Amino acid sequence: MSEELLSEINWNDEGLVPVIAQESATGRVLLLAWMNREALAATVREGQAVYWSRTRASLWRKGEQSGHVQIVKDIRLDCDNDTVLLTVEQKGGIACHTGRHSCFFRQWQSDGWVEVEPVLKSVEEIYGKK
Amino acid sequence: MSEELLSEINWNDEGLVPVIAQESATGRVLLLAWMNREALAATVREGQAVYWSRTRASLWRKGEQSGHVQIVKDIRLDCDNDTVLLTVEQKGGIACHTGRHSCFFRQWQSDGWVEVEPVLKSVEEIYGKK
Repeated sequence: MSEELLSEINWNDEGLVPVIAQESATGRVLLLAWMNREALAATVREGQAVYWSRTRASLWRKGEQSGHVQIVKDIRLDCDNDTVLLTVEQKGGIACHTGRHSCFFRQWQSDGWVEVEPVLKSVEEIYGKK
Repeated sequence: MSEELLSEINWNDEGLVPVIAQESATGRVLLLAWMNREALAATVREGQAVYWSRTRASLWRKGEQSGHVQIVKDIRLDCDNDTVLLTVEQKGGIACHTGRHSCFFRQWQSDGWVEVEPVLKSVEEIYGKK
């Protein structure tokens, strides 16, 4: 991905864009993460989702610890050039660090946010016990 | 939506969260927009997507000019409490202000970003000629 094509993207003041990951097999929206130029270039080059971790301030190769890698099938850019949409194959069927399929597991109901999706694998099992 | 439940959300420094709108009928991701507390409360109350326009710095009742209203079927919150996912019925089958079904109409190909979706209705037809 050339510098010129990265420049078409409207990076925010922190040099980032929000990135939506959608699962190809199910159509489920799995997560929203962020990328900087380096992360997007790495994603294109490696064919796997590489995000920018804002908390760790470093590249985050999705699945590097858990094995829950995202194989990238399609990359889209929106009309304002400020959001990216990835279509991915989610390895292990788990995108969320809580062990759930999708990060969007809380549903608004009249009395509050309610967890509506099961934990498929415990955090201990995914990341190993200390 | 009570103050207490709005408080569960991790609003960013500008008091906003990114919101993904996904079409219930097709599973297509239509757009990413932003909400503040007032917009989310209005969305819940009215059952239609109300965003916060960062460019106009005002509430944006999606479809107020175009008629391309989004009827809200489901509201989800992610594991970090900092992204909202709406499942919507997209009136008119057009979410994008360019007259396309989805805002994500540009696809990354080896030689650049390529428009891969048709304009279903011209901007003049949607917003009226001046």
